[in-house]
Amino acid sequence: MPTTIADRVAALRQIVEQGGGDGFIVPHEDEYQNENLPLWAERLAWLTGFTGSAGVAVVLMDKAVVMSDARYTLQLPQQCDAAIFTTENSSKVGVATWLKQNAPTGAKIFYDAFLHSKAQIDALTRALDGTGIVLAALTPNPIDTVWDKEGRPALPAAPVTLFPEILSGTSSRDKRAALATQLRADGHHATLLTAQDSVAWLLNIRGADVPQTPVALSYLLLRADGHAVWFIPPAKIPEDVRDALGDDVTIVPPDALAQHIADLRGQAVRIDSAQCSAAIFDMLIAQDISVVAGPDLCLLPRAIKTSAEQAAMRQAHIRDGVAMVKFLHWLDGQVAAKAKMDEVSIGAKLTTFRAQAAEFRDISFDPIVGFNGNGAIIHYRAENDPTNAAQVTGNGVLLIDSGAQYSDGTTDITRTLAINTVPDDIRASSTAVLRGHIALASAVFPQGTTGIQLDTLARAPLWRVGLDYPHGTGHGVGCYLSVHEAAGQGIHARGAAPILPGMILSNEPGYYREGAFGIRIENLILCQDVGRNYDDGRARCSFETITLCPYDRNMIVAADLTPAEIAWINAYHAQVRTKLTPFLDADQAAWLHAQTEAL
Amino acid sequence: MPTTIADRVAALRQIVEQGGGDGFIVPHEDEYQNENLPLWAERLAWLTGFTGSAGVAVVLMDKAVVMSDARYTLQLPQQCDAAIFTTENSSKVGVATWLKQNAPTGAKIFYDAFLHSKAQIDALTRALDGTGIVLAALTPNPIDTVWDKEGRPALPAAPVTLFPEILSGTSSRDKRAALATQLRADGHHATLLTAQDSVAWLLNIRGADVPQTPVALSYLLLRADGHAVWFIPPAKIPEDVRDALGDDVTIVPPDALAQHIADLRGQAVRIDSAQCSAAIFDMLIAQDISVVAGPDLCLLPRAIKTSAEQAAMRQAHIRDGVAMVKFLHWLDGQVAAKAKMDEVSIGAKLTTFRAQAAEFRDISFDPIVGFNGNGAIIHYRAENDPTNAAQVTGNGVLLIDSGAQYSDGTTDITRTLAINTVPDDIRASSTAVLRGHIALASAVFPQGTTGIQLDTLARAPLWRVGLDYPHGTGHGVGCYLSVHEAAGQGIHARGAAPILPGMILSNEPGYYREGAFGIRIENLILCQDVGRNYDDGRARCSFETITLCPYDRNMIVAADLTPAEIAWINAYHAQVRTKLTPFLDADQAAWLHAQTEAL
Repeated sequence: MPTTIADRVAALRQIVEQGGGDGFIVPHEDEYQNENLPLWAERLAWLTGFTGSAGVAVVLMDKAVVMSDARYTLQLPQQCDAAIFTTENSSKVGVATWLKQNAPTGAKIFYDAFLHSKAQIDALTRALDGTGIVLAALTPNPIDTVWDKEGRPALPAAPVTLFPEILSGTSSRDKRAALATQLRADGHHATLLTAQDSVAWLLNIRGADVPQTPVALSYLLLRADGHAVWFIPPAKIPEDVRDALGDDVTIVPPDALAQHIADLRGQAVRIDSAQCSAAIFDMLIAQDISVVAGPDLCLLPRAIKTSAEQAAMRQAHIRDGVAMVKFLHWLDGQVAAKAKMDEVSIGAKLTTFRAQAAEFRDISFDPIVGFNGNGAIIHYRAENDPTNAAQVTGNGVLLIDSGAQYSDGTTDITRTLAINTVPDDIRASSTAVLRGHIALASAVFPQGTTGIQLDTLARAPLWRVGLDYPHGTGHGVGCYLSVHEAAGQGIHARGAAPILPGMILSNEPGYYREGAFGIRIENLILCQDVGRNYDDGRARCSFETITLCPYDRNMIVAADLTPAEIAWINAYHAQVRTKLTPFLDADQAAWLHAQTEAL
Repeated sequence: MPTTIADRVAALRQIVEQGGGDGFIVPHEDEYQNENLPLWAERLAWLTGFTGSAGVAVVLMDKAVVMSDARYTLQLPQQCDAAIFTTENSSKVGVATWLKQNAPTGAKIFYDAFLHSKAQIDALTRALDGTGIVLAALTPNPIDTVWDKEGRPALPAAPVTLFPEILSGTSSRDKRAALATQLRADGHHATLLTAQDSVAWLLNIRGADVPQTPVALSYLLLRADGHAVWFIPPAKIPEDVRDALGDDVTIVPPDALAQHIADLRGQAVRIDSAQCSAAIFDMLIAQDISVVAGPDLCLLPRAIKTSAEQAAMRQAHIRDGVAMVKFLHWLDGQVAAKAKMDEVSIGAKLTTFRAQAAEFRDISFDPIVGFNGNGAIIHYRAENDPTNAAQVTGNGVLLIDSGAQYSDGTTDITRTLAINTVPDDIRASSTAVLRGHIALASAVFPQGTTGIQLDTLARAPLWRVGLDYPHGTGHGVGCYLSVHEAAGQGIHARGAAPILPGMILSNEPGYYREGAFGIRIENLILCQDVGRNYDDGRARCSFETITLCPYDRNMIVAADLTPAEIAWINAYHAQVRTKLTPFLDADQAAWLHAQTEAL
């Protein structure tokens, strides 16, 4: 029974060779194209030792590679045995490029079609076109065959819970009816939902199968008559959930999927081919189903939060603001006391403040705590290389990007703090970032304005002084669901979709100077219809900032701000003070009072 | 010999019927897809009486229609005999829709393939797919057959002139060499240029074949070896032009095109299918030529003005500013004297001021002069319905959009003027438009920023107060060439191309209240590399405003402006005063002095 990495790779190679293949692709993603995985699905880590949150391995008969993005440049070679694996930056050398350079002519490369989206396999096939290298789906996954024999963790069996209608604002029945109406209008017989947050949203349920995102691993088939078939182990569904869903949702085990797909023969089924696995897509095609590719029907209604969800998110943000203020007050004391602390211990401490709330369920992502040069690494995680985690001491800039999952909402906030003394030019850069942040937060615009149009507002004050940031300005955020909603509601250079009332987005401009410091200031903003129309009838929209936490006054050069910007900060700080003070002790309240004095 | 409209339509129908067809499409455009036509090519006007600058007729055996856009809603029924033609707004009922509603099943509709772009015919064919209505190219054009017999105007024979290298900054030889290098790099054997301004730009020549745009009707074939074949009547080419072009440009009559295309058999030829006529496209295909569709190779280099072109455009704008100031000074006097004037007479008077310059060649488009409600009609032309041209008297807002062709540059400027007293709310709207105009004029941005990103800057101040405008913010402008350059360098919601140093664009936000007033403020702006890079190496870009003319102070609410905006206006006005005063008489100079006092 293999136990070393070398044994595992050898066992994998043997199965591939017996199957007539020359290699196997092992992505990080699971059967649901999740990034956050149950231990059961950590195939890449099991095979290679690499524990990053993104990556892929390719194992040929005589060589193997593990690749991930620039976040893991240091971690990859530390975790992967160089005697077995080379490592690559996947944004420079992708799977297709590596195969072209390393696979023998005529090579047959296997993959598990459940672990790749249809779009991904199509793109890889096109990239290999004409090279003589061919791809072939392999069942069962040879890693599962080997791993199952040597003490693989169990499949997650966490019970599903209800997301109460008082928080969701719309019953699952009404959501399903609305989608069924749309299916009928489009002439489609059914849609198969494969995105975990879409299933959770549609059924008003939450799960605990993966860390940091409260979803239950499952698929859902919604028919145009409104009936749903939910593919999930029935043992995971408590009686109250079953009762709430009623007779219109049939709960069947996951292995019933093939039969239910067969029953759709000849019908028109809508699928999100960017999300759906190649395996399921091919199952549909094999049944002569007319596959209609289009965005997941839940994306838009899920992005537009109901009044109840908006209220719930506001509550979660008061709670999160209280935790942040307690943490910042604590941090100030630590700095004053010259206490020993590093990036990892600071992130852990922040989580303890959040975890004090009864409604706390999890963090929404691993905190990013970057001091000075580490703050310039946009997805920096000190944990990826703990021996290198910076001591937070002396003068410097500390970037902290973090968030939580509460039972009523998801948070995501970044503050950039002055530790002791920060030079004026860095404070000026931070003030420019704050100006961009305020420009977006205070924008007024007609309904229909797109993300790319709004993105400019946050960048213009930075552009003016020669600064910019190499990432988007805003992403959608779920309500006790994914902290990155994969819908079109982004504020960035590819954001072609309109930003609509009810959408919740991040507002996070930044500036990064490699090797020196990183600045990012992030709140969540909720698009609102202000209720006065433009001449042509379009609604007037603006943003309500729902994150509640003071900006670090020591990072602000007030002389660089316009009177309107100063007024905006003062009004925001007054609101933060009013809403959070009732939940703070006297010391913390005094600290918040000082931080929120008018500029 | 037919002389009435009815006779002409009857003669057309007879030829179509003899050819086995059921209808014929008559677009406004000519063989070069021009909007401005020589009289020889005014087929739509000859057949229908409609003289608008855009439109199309469809003549069936028992009915006929003339359609044009909303600009011509009043003019169409006045000019078209209702006994023969119905009329339609083409943005509501296009050719395909009208044919579907009116043509008999199985109808065969003829068109002249030289008068439609390939893209247009493809789109129409797709729209009619499945209707049973088929399109067929017909040669010769039956209108030409009839019209040639009854005193058709001669083909334009204006001699071509050189556009001096001191103005263009790059020799035609160098331009052709650069394009040839690109053809070789792309593995293409040749490109056929069918856009008139591209041919003029490439050869450093100008023509006088059509009004308002100084082009010479012709095609040009550029081979990858750098040799060019210019299809134009040799009699139009004076000796100096022939000498300047040298041996590398072969001048042949237009009817040699077919033979030269036949000589390309089996080669790869690049064509702009959005611009090239269906006839030429089909000629290429018929010769087994590998047609590579892609944007006209001249578009980008033509859009990026050389230093010499930039200097020439600046000179033209001083001259145009002088004419504008003389005109505005005159207009002020007319208003004070309560002189009788209407929109048509004001536009004509403005042209006389421009025509005083020795370098004046033509206006660059028909002036748009709209008083009060007429100003809200975006492409208003009082001439389209002269009986309705408004008297400019009493209180109101007067929008004037105009421009000229000088031998060294093209201009396009809009000013919106207070006539006597204008209410505060309208002045506030005008100030918001001015704020948008200043935001774009003073923008700083990294090279690579696209038109859609910059568009937001001009709109944000308007959005904030509930205003917007239903058109783009900026279009490219040629250097003594097209006032609307059809390249990708637009500042609007579909402007996906980067705005690059050397590009000249309009900056023309506006606001229109139907039936009440229109506001638009337009200058031309020249993108400049400021010479300091962003961290990632991208150049820092800004705009130089090259239009020189004061804004109407009576339309500005100074209290609505930020100190930075007031400083910008004052600096601009100071520059206008300095550059124009030397060319004004004492009265005009005094008027300009008062108009350009610091706010």
